[in-house]
Amino acid sequence: MDICRKVVKNNDGYKSNYNGINGVRELEQIYMERALELAKKGIGYTSPNPLVGAVIVKDGRIIGEGYHEVYGGPHAEINAFNNANESVAGATMYVTLEPCSHYGKTPPCSKAIVEKGIGKVVIGMIDPNPLVAGNGIKILEDNHIEVVTGVLEEELKKLNEIFIKYITTKKPFCILKTAMTLDGKIATKTGDSMWISNELSRKYVHKIRHQVSGIMVGIGTVLKDDPSLTTRLEDIEGKDPIRIIVDTECKLPLDSKVLNLKSKAKTIIATTEKAADDNVKAVQEKGGEVIVTPLKDGQVDLNYLMDALGQQGIDSVLIEGGATLNYSAVSSGVVDKVLSFIGPKIFGGVDAKTPVAGDGIALVRDAVLLKDICVSSFGDDILIEGYL
Amino acid sequence: MDICRKVVKNNDGYKSNYNGINGVRELEQIYMERALELAKKGIGYTSPNPLVGAVIVKDGRIIGEGYHEVYGGPHAEINAFNNANESVAGATMYVTLEPCSHYGKTPPCSKAIVEKGIGKVVIGMIDPNPLVAGNGIKILEDNHIEVVTGVLEEELKKLNEIFIKYITTKKPFCILKTAMTLDGKIATKTGDSMWISNELSRKYVHKIRHQVSGIMVGIGTVLKDDPSLTTRLEDIEGKDPIRIIVDTECKLPLDSKVLNLKSKAKTIIATTEKAADDNVKAVQEKGGEVIVTPLKDGQVDLNYLMDALGQQGIDSVLIEGGATLNYSAVSSGVVDKVLSFIGPKIFGGVDAKTPVAGDGIALVRDAVLLKDICVSSFGDDILIEGYL
Repeated sequence: MDICRKVVKNNDGYKSNYNGINGVRELEQIYMERALELAKKGIGYTSPNPLVGAVIVKDGRIIGEGYHEVYGGPHAEINAFNNANESVAGATMYVTLEPCSHYGKTPPCSKAIVEKGIGKVVIGMIDPNPLVAGNGIKILEDNHIEVVTGVLEEELKKLNEIFIKYITTKKPFCILKTAMTLDGKIATKTGDSMWISNELSRKYVHKIRHQVSGIMVGIGTVLKDDPSLTTRLEDIEGKDPIRIIVDTECKLPLDSKVLNLKSKAKTIIATTEKAADDNVKAVQEKGGEVIVTPLKDGQVDLNYLMDALGQQGIDSVLIEGGATLNYSAVSSGVVDKVLSFIGPKIFGGVDAKTPVAGDGIALVRDAVLLKDICVSSFGDDILIEGYL
Repeated sequence: MDICRKVVKNNDGYKSNYNGINGVRELEQIYMERALELAKKGIGYTSPNPLVGAVIVKDGRIIGEGYHEVYGGPHAEINAFNNANESVAGATMYVTLEPCSHYGKTPPCSKAIVEKGIGKVVIGMIDPNPLVAGNGIKILEDNHIEVVTGVLEEELKKLNEIFIKYITTKKPFCILKTAMTLDGKIATKTGDSMWISNELSRKYVHKIRHQVSGIMVGIGTVLKDDPSLTTRLEDIEGKDPIRIIVDTECKLPLDSKVLNLKSKAKTIIATTEKAADDNVKAVQEKGGEVIVTPLKDGQVDLNYLMDALGQQGIDSVLIEGGATLNYSAVSSGVVDKVLSFIGPKIFGGVDAKTPVAGDGIALVRDAVLLKDICVSSFGDDILIEGYL
């Protein structure tokens, strides 16, 4: 996830603390910033693993760099060792995430660090993974390696917000993306909605599609727009997210784009007992995977669905409307983050739709509040990000 | 008008050019910035005159400062002369607006500058007033005074946007202020709307009320909220704007706050032939001033009304809702600027109201577009400003 650049308010969440209190602190931050940049190179490829970058410094020179490039591949620390152009003995390693202590797809990095004779390890954030969580640091310290933690911690927590949510809850990190006019409309009164946001904003959304594991829309959006929900990027080949159609009665047309794509990602139809068996069989025959959830207020139970998606290893879901699904998602508590694009235009219209509809709350005091608000711009469009 | 601090996009409109190309240019900007700060001190008191500040510099020292403090009072240049603590002969004067050339409430400043022996005049922007517009500069140059123009011009045009519109069109500069949630709602489905924006935002709106000549609401807002529409400020005694109630059928209740206030500002009721004579007489007896406009789409003709208000010397109007009046204002083309406050919360609700309702446009390509977008924050609230 690209880090929002303009922090309007420094809440307890994301905040910059680059102004070190002395030279040492500043240097640590500079190297950690480099490690963070390296970590970002893995965006879109490491899921459900974290994004991690590592830098090895000796006598004031960077002698090795690495990052976790792809799920199942070597960890950042190992790549940094492999890329080092001289002996790393006695050097300092800067790594964005606590080195692992367990045997997973690869042997534990903390042991490799000890074996390589690293003298000091500066760690961005402690691993939230209960299998690690301090054990990596313990191995280092037990072997008399100096350890510093918490450098650029807030930025790194933001970078790995998907990983943190997923590793600790096994539920996907859920991003609700909306786009509205300056008067709160997602379409004109006639339903015309191309486009609310500009090309730069829409390109950014495709970057996010590349980063997440799943993309979710309601059946209403499919019936209205017939979207393909794929990732179209200019500079790199985008990774399509798994398509998830929330479709209580399984009315997805068999000629919908989402059932007729050349895409490495599958399409999941989330439905309920309200669906006719024939419809379910038909979408399955078209290659769709069907998840049947219990009924919640007569519709797909989104909490059940998110659990089911998490069990499949889907660590993140981007919800892209419409207004009915958006309200269900917000009110059922599955949303972690909101991305609200605002196009500086006015539609008017008492009947024009808004980003979140459904039943709605009655009293202001019951509103769903967002925190850690962050604002950025894409040309004339404004993006407001916040967390629930 | 406070200048929006965060420019998200440098359009042709407001942009900063503080990075001078050489030392002289930088110094000119520093002194002009001081003159701009002085000019701002007149906010709320000079209407319909412009905000003007002046600084006199000699041998690298500021030896005199002044600003246009109040309508009818001395101009900034004269105040700067009066405040100078030594001879101004040969000094440079920095003044935000071209010195006047005509006899108005006071004698022309350009003549005073010549008489005082000022050697050079640096001017922020040329006076848009057709009575001046270059004539002030001509007087200076005819008297062999060096003149530089266009320093901080865009900032100064923004500072005096009300004056520029009014002096060139005789129509009030019209600001549409809205406040909505991140899902585009101005109230919950039940109409609860206290509050959408936070205390900091609402305080800022009271500052704007202090700055404008008029405040406008529709009869629907009066019937729902019974607002007083006065200015409440903590640090200074606020100036109440003239209250303008758009009330096609003159149904304003006689016990409304706007007809029963202790306020130096009057209340205008804009109505039409649809109003019953008895109603008109009754509000007049309560001290309300009635303006009857032709019918436009069965309602008050806002263009006619703005002309009528301009003829009264009302140079600026703040429109504060509701959704129906807002749409009439936007679609009739009377709005110059939009202030859109966004509270980071979600209401949901297919029936909850949005900031601009009315009939609305049918096609995205017919949307009312805003330019020169500028974003700032008030705590967690976001303010998006733009021009039509």
